Order: sequence, then structure tokens, then C-alpha cells
Amino acid sequence: MIRTILIVVCTLFSFIASINAKENSSKNIIYMIGDGMGANYLTAYRYWIAQQPNHTINSTILDKLWVGNAMTYPDDDTFVTDSAAGATALATTTKTYNGAIAVDHQHQPLHTLLIEAKKRNKSTALLATSDITHATPASFYAHQKQRNEYNQIADQLYDNQWQNKPLADLVLAGGLTYLKRQDRNLLQEFTRLGYQLETDFNKLQNLNKLPALGVFHDKGFDYALDSQQNRLALMTRHALNLLANPTTKQNGFFMLIEASQIDWCGHANDIACALAEMHDFARAIEIAHQFVLSNPDTLLVVTADHETGGLSIGADGEYNWNPQVLNNVRHSLPILGKKLASSESPINTWYALTQIELSEEARAELTSIQSGEQNKYVNFARKVINQYSLTGWTSGGHTAADVPVLAAGADARLFYGFQDNTQIAEKLFYLLSR
Amino acid sequence: MIRTILIVVCTLFSFIASINAKENSSKNIIYMIGDGMGANYLTAYRYWIAQQPNHTINSTILDKLWVGNAMTYPDDDTFVTDSAAGATALATTTKTYNGAIAVDHQHQPLHTLLIEAKKRNKSTALLATSDITHATPASFYAHQKQRNEYNQIADQLYDNQWQNKPLADLVLAGGLTYLKRQDRNLLQEFTRLGYQLETDFNKLQNLNKLPALGVFHDKGFDYALDSQQNRLALMTRHALNLLANPTTKQNGFFMLIEASQIDWCGHANDIACALAEMHDFARAIEIAHQFVLSNPDTLLVVTADHETGGLSIGADGEYNWNPQVLNNVRHSLPILGKKLASSESPINTWYALTQIELSEEARAELTSIQSGEQNKYVNFARKVINQYSLTGWTSGGHTAADVPVLAAGADARLFYGFQDNTQIAEKLFYLLSR
Ligand SMILES: [Zn+2]
Ligand SMILES: [Zn+2]
Repeated sequence: MIRTILIVVCTLFSFIASINAKENSSKNIIYMIGDGMGANYLTAYRYWIAQQPNHTINSTILDKLWVGNAMTYPDDDTFVTDSAAGATALATTTKTYNGAIAVDHQHQPLHTLLIEAKKRNKSTALLATSDITHATPASFYAHQKQRNEYNQIADQLYDNQWQNKPLADLVLAGGLTYLKRQDRNLLQEFTRLGYQLETDFNKLQNLNKLPALGVFHDKGFDYALDSQQNRLALMTRHALNLLANPTTKQNGFFMLIEASQIDWCGHANDIACALAEMHDFARAIEIAHQFVLSNPDTLLVVTADHETGGLSIGADGEYNWNPQVLNNVRHSLPILGKKLASSESPINTWYALTQIELSEEARAELTSIQSGEQNKYVNFARKVINQYSLTGWTSGGHTAADVPVLAAGADARLFYGFQDNTQIAEKLFYLLSR
Repeated sequence: MIRTILIVVCTLFSFIASINAKENSSKNIIYMIGDGMGANYLTAYRYWIAQQPNHTINSTILDKLWVGNAMTYPDDDTFVTDSAAGATALATTTKTYNGAIAVDHQHQPLHTLLIEAKKRNKSTALLATSDITHATPASFYAHQKQRNEYNQIADQLYDNQWQNKPLADLVLAGGLTYLKRQDRNLLQEFTRLGYQLETDFNKLQNLNKLPALGVFHDKGFDYALDSQQNRLALMTRHALNLLANPTTKQNGFFMLIEASQIDWCGHANDIACALAEMHDFARAIEIAHQFVLSNPDTLLVVTADHETGGLSIGADGEYNWNPQVLNNVRHSLPILGKKLASSESPINTWYALTQIELSEEARAELTSIQSGEQNKYVNFARKVINQYSLTGWTSGGHTAADVPVLAAGADARLFYGFQDNTQIAEKLFYLLSR
């Protein structure tokens, strides 16, 4: 008994002592969230990169940083969280109901990591491939009882301030629809406050100092697969350059980076789309990890808000997975559907855009679809791509799967092992508050 | 002042602890394999135990010991392993082809952890709820080019020896069909060598010293759900009592414990069955963990050979899971099917054995099945139980999902983070060879 008490006391004590000992530990925090990124997305990404089963398959950057797992259940009458409750847990330490943006059951605002970072005089950045008003980034700067109240959420990007300044020194995301409205032009308001503004993603480099606002699309970005662009990786690199600037460097920074669209591809059960998003996210993580290696006072934490789709690698009783099938799929399912529906020759368009040989039966099915029936083309493409690659899905929504926790750099060991999603936020608050 | 005292006390304490740790590090190894136990089985088990979504859900013994993850791909033209290649990797450090029992592609025998333990003069035990000739336990003592050559595998339980003794000092499993045959009675041969023998599981206590052989069923045990018995936990407790005996204690022991039937329930997409197996396994892990706590020179490692079924918690677009549906399901799907098929009133039998209220449509479907059509009853029960509980499956086979790695006790930290399944065996070989 005394032994047990001593172990507990000493473990706690040496933990606190070791943290105090390091003067510069985790001055900068890079917090990356892969929306919908259950563990099987990491597995799929690894084997897709490997292509062929092989005696030795290389681990990816995601594998290398994998240190723990987290539960995601909301404080609701379900076990399955939505992105709002998931992000709120990750941003505030508090579980809440599905749909809530950083508010509790009584709709009271919850303290967020972004506010805490500002209180600690850190530079702050929010990056996402969705609109900036989407649930995950929103849960860091806004408090709203329902996630779909986008205009009210957008207003709070400007209105929720610390010492007369908005909470984010840098925003790189989509969402012009909500930031530049008939009733309010937030872009103008930010500009008046001295923010640099850019709305053309090809001119990202024009943002050359903080504060800065890059809003590049009406809502979200195009899918990585459709745009053939690792836009999250590009934004991550650019943001790190701005944040590591000598003038902002002193107090460190807090940056949230969301790979928003892994989730959207998951909802559509679109494996080629999901893998392209994973590839962009992996590139962004590599850039963040390189920064950690050359700036050891930086902590990198990567996790997900929940799993989407009930993805499995292998399906239908077959002991195999065929990622090769996906290699020449050139578009996400909605764009494939659109292009097939407007094609003179859907069969030719199919081969041009997927290079997947169809069985006789599938050819007959494809040719039987009436021109213009976009949804039927989407469903056809989904079925064929999943069946041929042996990719399984159980849902068009989320599941209660635990999510991976990755960490590197200063204080990374705090995130080892099994934890609740709220504990990830607790640890980050603790690190910010030292 | 308190700080200073704490520093002194803790320094002394950790010094003493470290000395003890070095002297006694992992003399005993308990290696537990949940066949088919992907990460979602741990999640399902946790939420099934919790029953109701709740602000705070307790973590299970499995969660508490969760330290890492492992890849499972075989050295084959697939990404999805079977139990033979998976167990061979976990037993020998070598990836091989699906179907291989501790042999390489040239059918050459591979050195196993069980042999290594014997070379180190350790007591050894093999526990399983399958027949002892099934792929996982077999890969520790036999070398066979195809897993289904059960008689040849059974022979090797006796014939593969170290210093004129079989490799296992204790066997507790099923498999009378293969051990007591027309052409060879292995039970008799073991008895002649001085092994205690018991074939009645209710008389497990009769085995009161090593060496001992408990073979309790023709093939595998009845499912935990059907037998209402945590038989793996009972065997684990009994085995630890025998192995911790003062006479065998000196050199330590190596014990393999397989929860064989998680996989079988997974193949059948039978969630109630899988959870009952998980419960038995969790109880066995608790017993092993208690042993570790009172014997700090013991290492406990728990993992799986692969995931089975593509299980997901939540399905069909619903953001929920309903474990309450499963609470009064009294039998596995095959037994439910058998009882429904032979019932005068399938509707009454359904309610008696499941207490699941059926929709009008489901009632009509149940009453439309012809008496005796056992498979249709099985399929009906599977569909209803999965749909009503919102449990998803993508396959009747295995998937390539990474598997959890749990560890506790001496040298547990070696198993933290991401690894290949072969590395688990490498680490155990390293610990045995010190
Ligand atoms: Zn989400
Ligand atoms: Zn297996």
C-alpha cells in the first residue's frame, strides 16, 4: 500500500519536475486534426503508398508519430460524436451535445485553447480546407448552440476578441460566402484592423506578415483529388514561415490545422478521394514535423474528432485489398458522376477518368443509366471502385471508433497511450498555462 | 521543504525500484492473443460495459493497458493475413504466406518463442479456447505447410521436443478429435511421460502439478455466450497457480493464452457472441494483470493476429450504437438458428432467447421462414441484431486493420507506439535471450 502511494506520488512528482526543468518545452504548439480520420485511414494510406504487398512495408509519417488512441463519445444520448461535439472536446476539455460549437448543454461558452493561447501572448493561426466557419475550426474561436448557424459563427471570427484584437492572427481557409455577406463584410473589417487579405490561393505568397487573412473559396476547397493540389501542405508551410518570423517568435505560437475533407470523402464512401486528402494531410504533417525537428521547443499533436464511414481495408469475405485499382481514378465521386452524366459516351469517359476495366455486367449497368442521371452514375462509380478495390464501409455517417493520437517534439510523451479526447485538450491547456 | 523531502524520498525510491527492476526484469512472460481482436472490439466492449452513453465512460482493463498498435500484413500477395501467417509472425518474427504454421515459403521450420523459452529452462504453457491444433497455438509448437493438416500438427505437440520432453509443460485447450485418434493416442503418450491428464473441464482442479494436459472438447470450447462460462479466465487463473509453484518458479515461465473464438464470432458477424468472448478475455487479462502487479518480474503483452469482420460501432448512417439490444441475447447465432428452426413457435422462441421487440415487418419475415430452415433463421437473427444495435460489418473474413498492443509489467515500455507484428516477437525473443 505504501509502495503504491509512493509510486503514484513519485511518478506525479517526477513528471511535474521534468516539465518544470525544461525552460523551453513546447513553446509552440501545432495541433492537427484529421476530420473523420479513424485508424483505418492511416492503414489504408500506408498500404496505398506501398501499392504492392511486400515483405517489408514502410511505415508512413503518420505511423512513425503514432503514440496513442483516444475515445470520442459525446455527452449525448449516443456513443457517436459529430464534428461539433468532437471538436469542442478537443478545443475546450468539455464533452457536449452533438451540434454544439464550444458551448455546454446550457449554451454557455466554453474556454478554448485558442483564447488561452492569446492570453499567453502567443501568435495564433487557424488553417482548414473547409470554410473557416465549419465545426472544427469554429469550435476554437466561436460559441454557438448549433453548428449550422454559419453567419453567426463567421461574425465571431472577428467579434470574439482578446485585448481588442481577433483571436486568430492568421487564417487560411475557405468560407467567402460567410465572411463577405450582404449584411456584413468581415473581410473589410479585418482589413481595417490591419490584416493583410488574400482571396486567390495562387497568390498565397502575398501574405507576408501577420496579421493576415487568406480566404480562398466560397465554402470549402476543391478536393485534393480534383484539384491535384496538396493545399493543406502548402498552407502549413506558409503559415510556419509567417509564425516563425523573428518578431512573432518570442512568445511562441498556437496553430490549429484541420484536414477537413477526409471526413467528406468518408461520408461519400469515396476511398480515392479520402486517400488524396490523407496524402495532403501526411505532407502537411511532414512539414510540421520538420519544423519540430529544427525547433525543439515545439510540440506537434495530431488526432481526429471521430471516424467516418466505418472504413475497412478488405471486404466481402476476400482476404485482400487492391489499392492499384485506385491509382488512376482522377476525380472524386461527385465530379465523376457529373462528368459521366454529361458525357456523350459514358463508357469512354469512365475509362479516361478511372482506367478501371469493367466486367461485362458492370459495362451493361453503366450503359443502362440514362444520360443526366448524375446520382446513378455516382452510385455506380462508388460501387465499382469499392468492390474492385475491396474497400468496405458500414455507414454514410460517423462511427464510435477510437481515433489515433500522434505526437512529436517537446512534451510529446504526455500523449502516449489511451486517453479520452477531452484529456488531449487538458494536456494542451496544462502546457499553455505553465 | 516538502519539495526537498519529496525529491530525496523519490530519488531513493526510484533507485531501489530500478535495482529491483533490473534484477527481475520479465522473468515470466504472459503472451495473450485475441484472435481477430481489432481495435473496434475493444471500443465495442467498453461501450457495451458502459451500456448507456454517459458523461464519463470508464475505461476497461484493455484500454488501461493499451500502449501501441501493430501492422499485420502477411508476406503474401495480399495485405490481409490469415491466423496462421499472423500467429507465425507473432511466434517466430517471420512473415510468411497465409496458411503457414511456423514455416517459411520453402516450408522450412522457423524458430519459435516456445522453443526459445524451453531452451532458457522456463516452464511453458499453451492455453486456448479452440482446439490446441488451431493456427494460433499451433504456430508456437508445430511446423506445418498448411494449417488444416490437424493430425500432423497434433503429432508435433508431442514429437517436437527439447531435451526429450514436449515443448509445453501445460496445455489447456480443446482438440480431443486430433489428440485421441484411431491411428495414434497422444493422450496416452503424454500420460506415459508423466503428464497429468484431464478431459472434463469441470475437473480442471484435478490438474495440480506440472506437466499437465487438459483437453476438454472434441474441437473448440462452446462459445462463452452459449456456455455462460468465462472458461479462458478460469484456465488462466489455474495455469498461473500451477506456473507460480515454488518448484517451477525459479527460471520463470512463458505462457501463450489465445482467446480463439473472438475471431469465430467475427466471421459470423455475431456481435453478442463477440462481446461475450471479449468479456471472458478481459477477465483473463485482469487475472494476468493482477499476477503482474504482485509479481513485478512478469511481462504481460496482449495483441491480436488481425481484425475480423470489419466491425464498426455505429452503422447505416445513424450516429448511435445500441448495446442494450444485446443484453438479453442468450445464444450465438448458430444456436439461435438451431433453436428457432426446431421450435413450434419461432416468435415465442425469439422473444425468449433475445427479448428483442420485432417490427411488424421483421415479425412477418420471421413467421415466413419454413420450419427447419436453419440458415434462414441464422441470417434473420444476424440481420435483426446488427440492424437494431447499429453494429456494422464489411466482411465474413479478415481485414487489414492494425491491431492493438497492450502491455504491463517488466519491460512493458518496449511495446509502446507503432510496430510491425514481427517486432513484437523480436522484442520477446530479445527479452528471453538476455
Ligand atoms: Zn468531423
Ligand atoms: Zn485469426
